[in-house]
Amino acid sequence: METAILLYDRFTALDAVGPLDVLGRIPGNEIRLVGVEPGPVTTETGLTVNAEQRFGDVPTPDALVVPGGFGQVDLMDDGPLHEWLRAVHEQSTWTTSVCTGSLILAAAGILKGHRATSHWLALDQLPAYGVEPVAERVVFDGKIVTAAGVSSGIDMALALAARIAGDEVAQIIQLGIEYDPQPPFDAGSPDKAPDFAVEFLRSQSRFVLEGR
Amino acid sequence: METAILLYDRFTALDAVGPLDVLGRIPGNEIRLVGVEPGPVTTETGLTVNAEQRFGDVPTPDALVVPGGFGQVDLMDDGPLHEWLRAVHEQSTWTTSVCTGSLILAAAGILKGHRATSHWLALDQLPAYGVEPVAERVVFDGKIVTAAGVSSGIDMALALAARIAGDEVAQIIQLGIEYDPQPPFDAGSPDKAPDFAVEFLRSQSRFVLEGR
Repeated sequence: METAILLYDRFTALDAVGPLDVLGRIPGNEIRLVGVEPGPVTTETGLTVNAEQRFGDVPTPDALVVPGGFGQVDLMDDGPLHEWLRAVHEQSTWTTSVCTGSLILAAAGILKGHRATSHWLALDQLPAYGVEPVAERVVFDGKIVTAAGVSSGIDMALALAARIAGDEVAQIIQLGIEYDPQPPFDAGSPDKAPDFAVEFLRSQSRFVLEGR
Repeated sequence: METAILLYDRFTALDAVGPLDVLGRIPGNEIRLVGVEPGPVTTETGLTVNAEQRFGDVPTPDALVVPGGFGQVDLMDDGPLHEWLRAVHEQSTWTTSVCTGSLILAAAGILKGHRATSHWLALDQLPAYGVEPVAERVVFDGKIVTAAGVSSGIDMALALAARIAGDEVAQIIQLGIEYDPQPPFDAGSPDKAPDFAVEFLRSQSRFVLEGR
């Protein structure tokens, strides 16, 4: 089994590393870290990671993970990357995204007519691509699996590990990464977080989108 | 403010990236990704990341994060790295670790006489260094903060963000990374996980330790 994780400039490190450290522990699952170009890629918070290969070098992965991040806005136009995403999806067992990675899949036409999620600030952008937005943490729609913002990639990857390798393997991985979350606040979704936090991030989001 | 995150061969990516994507969002907090040597470092699950600087190039960070991972076993002997850890700790505001990173701090003598945690499989190694093991997810003991296995670094970093920048900033960061965890199983700690998972990882652990 081969899983491709797409890396690009200004992706969110945790979007990719959550799934990497879960799916990378499934026995026999080979991870391919593919870049828009091969070589160094810098994440949103300044970590430089190395893309081993260009996306086209991995034509038929069984699973695909597309992370989100500020750099997502640069990957919305049709071209070779979208062609690759569509070709991969045609033959994949699982096509997945974390956070605003779903907007890239949507822009490539892959989510049309499907239910999907995204970062809570980006959910309202999905209908423009014919996608039904769903405010849930992990959304399975056939072989398409989308996760909400950033940290939700861990939950998605564990659910996916269970489908790929069985509940027992997924539970071993969860215990191995000691994923028994105890957030210090109950502020992780817009329904629960205090208003000032929701308002602050909404105002930042407008800034980011206008900066495109 | 300056936060150093130590990178080394075969560290666990999520141990470092959880804190990176939380602490890196604190306004004015500059992240320094320091290696045992500068240059490429490969994580346990095969991601190659770049250490911008050598540890000694960042002599006085306000906060230090030491991740864990299989490569921890190679950093247990006294020498320049331990000297740096001790010198950093002398003047730091916060000295922290995730997972088996606490064993490195312990071996450097920093945790002696303190309460600390680690990956659940490694807790029993702390007393040899004069450390009181605590089976909790995040342990504050003065300015020393240790987190349990892998994913606990996210919880630790949010708690730390609250101490550094206030509860409001920490809640904004939590909402920004949409950290509203919904694990598919309740298998994230040895108290809760099924016996087969605990036994499997214990047997693997013996293998890893014997392989040193």
